Amino acid sequence: MLGIFDSGVGGLTVAKEIKKLVPRQRIIYFGDTARVPWGNKSQETIQKYSEEIVRFLVSKGAKKIVIACNTASALTREYLQERYPSMIFYDVIDPCVKKIHIEKISRALIIGTRATIKSKAYEYPLLELLPRIKMYSQACPLFVPFIEEGLQEDRLLREITKKYLSRFVKKDIECVILGCTHYPLMKNIIKTVFNGKVKIINAAQEVALQVKDGCHDKHLDGDDIFYFSDWSEHNESFVKNIIGNKPNIKIHRLGS
Amino acid sequence: MLGIFDSGVGGLTVAKEIKKLVPRQRIIYFGDTARVPWGNKSQETIQKYSEEIVRFLVSKGAKKIVIACNTASALTREYLQERYPSMIFYDVIDPCVKKIHIEKISRALIIGTRATIKSKAYEYPLLELLPRIKMYSQACPLFVPFIEEGLQEDRLLREITKKYLSRFVKKDIECVILGCTHYPLMKNIIKTVFNGKVKIINAAQEVALQVKDGCHDKHLDGDDIFYFSDWSEHNESFVKNIIGNKPNIKIHRLGS
Repeated sequence: MLGIFDSGVGGLTVAKEIKKLVPRQRIIYFGDTARVPWGNKSQETIQKYSEEIVRFLVSKGAKKIVIACNTASALTREYLQERYPSMIFYDVIDPCVKKIHIEKISRALIIGTRATIKSKAYEYPLLELLPRIKMYSQACPLFVPFIEEGLQEDRLLREITKKYLSRFVKKDIECVILGCTHYPLMKNIIKTVFNGKVKIINAAQEVALQVKDGCHDKHLDGDDIFYFSDWSEHNESFVKNIIGNKPNIKIHRLGS
Repeated sequence: MLGIFDSGVGGLTVAKEIKKLVPRQRIIYFGDTARVPWGNKSQETIQKYSEEIVRFLVSKGAKKIVIACNTASALTREYLQERYPSMIFYDVIDPCVKKIHIEKISRALIIGTRATIKSKAYEYPLLELLPRIKMYSQACPLFVPFIEEGLQEDRLLREITKKYLSRFVKKDIECVILGCTHYPLMKNIIKTVFNGKVKIINAAQEVALQVKDGCHDKHLDGDDIFYFSDWSEHNESFVKNIIGNKPNIKIHRLGS
């Protein structure tokens, strides 16, 4: 069974891509909606939350775990691997780094939450693999609130996207890395701001390819379960919007 | 000692007003920055978080507690009073309701988070006191993210304010109730959308007056302490922006 977790509902974009490529893989998803968002929180807090969730997924039988959140991938991957040395973890950063390496990109822009950008989790491995790459980065903390409001095509989100990104339009950027699992939902707006002239690197798709490659088991059928640490009507419409009408949703409250 | 708590940093606007009116009142503040925001979360989760915080404030010697968060005031006031029957609680809704009653307002608009608006925590007591009052309400979930980004005077926030509120401009509204402790920071934008022709009712000021009235103790000097359940650089600039440069800040992690 494949565990997938995120601070909230954004990681469902990853779950969706995985189900597209490996439809028979049974998944168990955990979204920490009681404590979302994580993007402005400290490393210590994000590590503590991630570890609690991994413990829960392991207790439910997860054999491999996808960290479907860039902030958690950036700040907790090593921490979790040390605590669970035999677990196979996938994160959403590594496959993007590999893709940029293979495609020999020379100018890239990474966008994400404040915590992800501050961590330089993309820059460090990329500069090691491609020492001459020119990297730009921009925290876009207002994207997630807009997307969670269902306003991913709103005129004002377009304005905000311009506010964050227009200074990069003249930099001859080849690709924009969507460094947050919510951002695939607004990729058209991002592409438009760059007049369609950039490649979009979507971690959800890249990690799904890695999971598919590592998936040699047979007969993995079974019901997918989507756990959330909190549930409100607001979540419901968002979740249905991504993964369709009849997900098997359960509430599991963590911690005290 | 007066305890004050909020889901995060918004309640500092309340602490600031209280210190203006009762400067010698020693306060102990708790902001749950590890789990902020609460406005889209469920009642059960918000009650659990509030109770943990009240337990902490009581352990630190709080004799009275201000629920400096509208979402928590709406969803947890009775719940907390039942669990702590001898504690004196102040919330941010009751003093606004009293003010509207005294001023015999006949048309009011309440704005707040989705959870506060859905609770109808202003409508129920107001309709009891003023059965002929015409009440309008609007959830404004994007205000807090903008304010927390320090964009309380940004052109795009003005656009968003229009998006939420312009349909009320022709309703002859006498007052707008700021039903979220962040909103005093953007009261000028709100007033401008109504062409300056509405009264703004600011819960932070109203609850400070109640606290002052109930404050008969002498010699309440001592250091104020501001506890937060998480701390990042981002919080720092925001906190200094509200309460000045040298607050006594401590980190206290709650729960597991």
